[in-house]
Amino acid sequence: MSSGVREADDWAAVGRLLHAFNTEYDEPSPPPEVLAERLPTLADARVLVVGDPPHGLAVLRFRPAIWADAPECYLAELYIAPDHRGRGDGRALLDAAVELARAEGAAWIDLNTSTDDTAARGLYTSAGFSNTEGKPDGASQLYYEREL
Amino acid sequence: MSSGVREADDWAAVGRLLHAFNTEYDEPSPPPEVLAERLPTLADARVLVVGDPPHGLAVLRFRPAIWADAPECYLAELYIAPDHRGRGDGRALLDAAVELARAEGAAWIDLNTSTDDTAARGLYTSAGFSNTEGKPDGASQLYYEREL
Repeated sequence: MSSGVREADDWAAVGRLLHAFNTEYDEPSPPPEVLAERLPTLADARVLVVGDPPHGLAVLRFRPAIWADAPECYLAELYIAPDHRGRGDGRALLDAAVELARAEGAAWIDLNTSTDDTAARGLYTSAGFSNTEGKPDGASQLYYEREL
Repeated sequence: MSSGVREADDWAAVGRLLHAFNTEYDEPSPPPEVLAERLPTLADARVLVVGDPPHGLAVLRFRPAIWADAPECYLAELYIAPDHRGRGDGRALLDAAVELARAEGAAWIDLNTSTDDTAARGLYTSAGFSNTEGKPDGASQLYYEREL
């Protein structure tokens, strides 16, 4: 696993980081302590952290794929606290996430991000992710959601 | 459930439709019989079909959400065979998928599609899905993937 990155065991820190993530982006979030209780109950999830105490995290979720006899992996969250950006920790977490997904036998790993998050998009592209299904001239792939 | 839409029980037909889907879009696919065996083993999945014999299907996948004390639903596949398009069956499947997700208590339903699939994008938007996080002036949300 990449330098300084490890599986989470400090769930209070995980809850604080996830809460800080959504708060920073003006998205609703349960309180940190609710997230700290919830995350270890997600049987399909793996959580990676960086820093001591943790200042960044990645949440991966696994399920059996439809199109392959293998798991597929979704990088649900990737966050570095503002004071710790620009030092390669996001890249280290992303590399470790890819490594973990591969170790679990996943056929692919996917994620969603925002058009205006150019730093994240550059990071994902440099790590081999594609928004055009791996085709240089392919169409951009879009994420849609609806609240229920 | 919407008119003519029901939960799948003919897995051979499901396998044929999924195989036809990926073949039409030049994506790799296991043989129909492999898909017919695999789909009923996916414990988190629900499959809806339309037509008798089925000529369209939707595959939904559920897991516990991170941000809500509820499931989240992913519309993994939505397909209508070419000869049966333009008659409202895609909309009926989509409406039934939303209805099923809501009945399961899901907090939201999401999906990915291609920029150049204008028919699908129009369908999703007209059914209340948003590519901009529900914000009229929001940034477009993008889907990235990497094979492992």
